[in-house]
Amino acid sequence: MMLIDVKDMEAIAIGSAIYGTGGGGDPYIGKLLAQNAIRRHGPVKLVGLDELADDDLIVPVAMAGAPTVLLEKLADPQPLVAALRSLEAVLGRKAAAVMSIEVGGLNSTIPFCTASTLGLPLVDADTMGRAFPELQMTLATLAGLSASPLAMADEQGNALVVNAKDSHWSERFVRSIIMDMGGASYLAIHAMTVAQARRATVAGSISQARRTGQALFDARERHFDPIAELLRVTKGFALFRGKVLDVQRLVDGGFSRGQAQIQGLDGDTGQSLTLLFQNEFLLARRGDKVLCSTPDLIVLVDLETGEPITAEQTRYGLRVAVLGLPCVPAWRSAAALDLVGPRRFGYALDYRPVEQVMMDH
Amino acid sequence: MMLIDVKDMEAIAIGSAIYGTGGGGDPYIGKLLAQNAIRRHGPVKLVGLDELADDDLIVPVAMAGAPTVLLEKLADPQPLVAALRSLEAVLGRKAAAVMSIEVGGLNSTIPFCTASTLGLPLVDADTMGRAFPELQMTLATLAGLSASPLAMADEQGNALVVNAKDSHWSERFVRSIIMDMGGASYLAIHAMTVAQARRATVAGSISQARRTGQALFDARERHFDPIAELLRVTKGFALFRGKVLDVQRLVDGGFSRGQAQIQGLDGDTGQSLTLLFQNEFLLARRGDKVLCSTPDLIVLVDLETGEPITAEQTRYGLRVAVLGLPCVPAWRSAAALDLVGPRRFGYALDYRPVEQVMMDH
Repeated sequence: MMLIDVKDMEAIAIGSAIYGTGGGGDPYIGKLLAQNAIRRHGPVKLVGLDELADDDLIVPVAMAGAPTVLLEKLADPQPLVAALRSLEAVLGRKAAAVMSIEVGGLNSTIPFCTASTLGLPLVDADTMGRAFPELQMTLATLAGLSASPLAMADEQGNALVVNAKDSHWSERFVRSIIMDMGGASYLAIHAMTVAQARRATVAGSISQARRTGQALFDARERHFDPIAELLRVTKGFALFRGKVLDVQRLVDGGFSRGQAQIQGLDGDTGQSLTLLFQNEFLLARRGDKVLCSTPDLIVLVDLETGEPITAEQTRYGLRVAVLGLPCVPAWRSAAALDLVGPRRFGYALDYRPVEQVMMDH
Repeated sequence: MMLIDVKDMEAIAIGSAIYGTGGGGDPYIGKLLAQNAIRRHGPVKLVGLDELADDDLIVPVAMAGAPTVLLEKLADPQPLVAALRSLEAVLGRKAAAVMSIEVGGLNSTIPFCTASTLGLPLVDADTMGRAFPELQMTLATLAGLSASPLAMADEQGNALVVNAKDSHWSERFVRSIIMDMGGASYLAIHAMTVAQARRATVAGSISQARRTGQALFDARERHFDPIAELLRVTKGFALFRGKVLDVQRLVDGGFSRGQAQIQGLDGDTGQSLTLLFQNEFLLARRGDKVLCSTPDLIVLVDLETGEPITAEQTRYGLRVAVLGLPCVPAWRSAAALDLVGPRRFGYALDYRPVEQVMMDH
């Protein structure tokens, strides 16, 4: 068990945004909300699964919608509590702990807000080990667990419970309710027992995010190269360095879809890299060559500071480094690639682990 | 208390379709389902509010969506039970009785199916005294009762609970969920206590529908004029007789909107009547003159048999009579007209009670 206080949220926010791989929401607002909650209600116990009883109920909470709208809507702790309470009412039992559905700037920080407000521990795990744009893209789905029943709430005072037949129907209902709620929504989803969580989550992902954020802060303090430090702590690869030339973006059905063009600098001068995204960065292509694709993590960071940049924040003139991080092994099975591989997003190519692509270099 | 058996459903189905005023769904399928249920599970007790305890819970069940789709989807008793059970779970209490949300061909017959299947009584009342296209258009809304929480289910096995802030939000969520469910949905909505129902329903509307249907059967048997009998039992007015010339119809957002042109016959030869509808008939206009408008009831019946014809069934060549029936007095207050009057549907005119218009004649 680790006690997470106001200061720890800095490293968690920045580290989560790294694994958010361009999505997962803006880290800043979520961090402020979590810090406010911790100041009022006290620090949060970050616990491992083995610190809970096997049949304890874990309820992940999250925000979903187009990042463009998530940025506009002031994240509000109350609808998250409303969603969690709605789900508890339907399940007829209380949450023993809260969890993050994904590692991402917003969705790894606001669960701390809920945990602190309710005095519940937060599980040091998540269902992706990164961020993905669609609800069913979790290791929980892969483990055969249903996302239903799930609860949704908004800042207007609306709350809905969705008990869908399967993940296809969940996604359908949730997307249209997100649109009805104005483009973003608060969710309690994928409630599971601790025993189920053992085979449906990435253990230790929140403390790993904290270590990653801390490495970045330490590098800055000691005048180390922040990007080299990031690559060390994430076991990642430097894919490209350059300047953002152009970004095309379309908000559509609760998603922010588009692509960014990056013009090479330093060793990459004269080359150009294209980043494709659907909330998260999904594909990095240099000319015809795919350097990294989902489910491996494509991370855009500031060339000087190493600070992560979301797809939403990407704009002309930013000087960036593009990093490729191997995903957790569970995402590399054939079944997993059916769920989150390049073809799932309409890219006609087979997945190759980023470390293999780098060996060809 | 009255025991409703297989045979009684004939008169209830046809009589309800009269008050369905062109909407409320097809009476035939609902009747068959109710009769099947009664054959299997036994007759239904039709009870007055004074036969129940003041704090007994009444749960209305209904189908909603575009009539075009309601006709295509085989009405299924199971999702209605699923919707009712979902709502009971959220409310934490059991229904003591079932009720119709509206008087209409489908929505007055399928609640009998649910009542018989579950062995519950059915309340001799509804929340409109007719059918209306939108969820919030009930005397319950007028009495300040919320439609939320409400439950929706479909034949796929999906079930959702909506706890909306107000009726505007309910309508918004329900419409988009109806679309997600393929254009039609099963609902448990406007649960209320018996004490609340006293000021939020039209008492006796189901037995009145039965009497109306029975009057039509009796007229046929005795070779009386069926339309004269209908006018007698409903206290209605004959507005027009003619032949349907043209029908324009658009399915849009879970509604069937359009208009029908009727060419005059008999005493109305040389004249033309326009019927405007949004699921239900809302306006009957002869030339510039509005003969009848919502909330009064516009009823289209076969010129020979007096059988009601829904807006959905209206087609070229049908020989019809158009009847105007005064609505219940509760719909004639200023607040009620704000909710269901002509302007609410975009018609720039003030409501005039049909009996006043007829006196000008």
